[in-house]
Amino acid sequence: MRVLGVDPGLTRCGVGVVEGVAGRPLTMAGVGVVRTPPDMGLAHRLVAVERGIEQWLDEHRPDCVAVERVFSQHNVRTVMGTAQASAVAMLCAARRDIPVALHTPSEVKAAVTGSGRADKAQVGAMVTRLLRLDAPPKPADAADALALAICHIWRAPAQNRLQQAVAAHRTLKGRPA
Amino acid sequence: MRVLGVDPGLTRCGVGVVEGVAGRPLTMAGVGVVRTPPDMGLAHRLVAVERGIEQWLDEHRPDCVAVERVFSQHNVRTVMGTAQASAVAMLCAARRDIPVALHTPSEVKAAVTGSGRADKAQVGAMVTRLLRLDAPPKPADAADALALAICHIWRAPAQNRLQQAVAAHRTLKGRPA
Repeated sequence: MRVLGVDPGLTRCGVGVVEGVAGRPLTMAGVGVVRTPPDMGLAHRLVAVERGIEQWLDEHRPDCVAVERVFSQHNVRTVMGTAQASAVAMLCAARRDIPVALHTPSEVKAAVTGSGRADKAQVGAMVTRLLRLDAPPKPADAADALALAICHIWRAPAQNRLQQAVAAHRTLKGRPA
Repeated sequence: MRVLGVDPGLTRCGVGVVEGVAGRPLTMAGVGVVRTPPDMGLAHRLVAVERGIEQWLDEHRPDCVAVERVFSQHNVRTVMGTAQASAVAMLCAARRDIPVALHTPSEVKAAVTGSGRADKAQVGAMVTRLLRLDAPPKPADAADALALAICHIWRAPAQNRLQQAVAAHRTLKGRPA
């Protein structure tokens, strides 16, 4: 399973590709950041994010795209740009019929460090260890994108079983899933 | 000047096309709503919004797209979807090199009713009068999209003069605009 993780943002959009299955060592296939200049108009920044994400999809052909779920409670000044960059990432994936999964920041932290409240350094350290890298990927957005992809690979089997159980339950009750 | 106004939303995205120039009677060239089903996955809803906006751009070839500026202070439950739908609208326009303008809800209300605190009914009534329609466009999202387009046509000359003044000022100070 090859997963593109996207830590959405307008100034820096982290992207990271991880290959593997739950229970086996994982491999990093690529990591980077799509940047757009803060002095560019918002609409053109979104076009630049789209172009960057498309390049990563073209190059890596992931089976799934995992995007950070954005909450409106967060930093009010940056949350709109984050939501809009995440929309572009989801759009690019869905247009190609690539499944999109959303994970919250605390789900990602809990998956890779065991604690939903871990700090950036801890996430970076665990990403480095789990992918057997020489040093933590910089900037933090890139490491977060890899953490998202790892989180998705590890959570996907549980999510699939849950979805199958819900579908089976609905079928039993006579409501097609 | 032909302006496509977009009142962004995932469930109902209002779209309206207005033709005219400030100081002359305006004409409605089209109005409608792009809808996506709430039980569809978010990523596919964004693709459906994109498809809808593209159709309006293809059909009406606007000179400018005016989108409501979304604030994160608003209703927390719906604001993320609104921000994401607005991102799709901006992206579609900017990809075609159509200028995108953002106007706040109070700017739009003030432009068409004289009060930034006008209610939906008042906005609908003024849109009906200004475009010489038989009845207010339904749903309110469609009327709001027309109000956005009207607001843009009326504000654009002032905005252009402001931009020219700023550019001239910068040039005088020896800093190219």
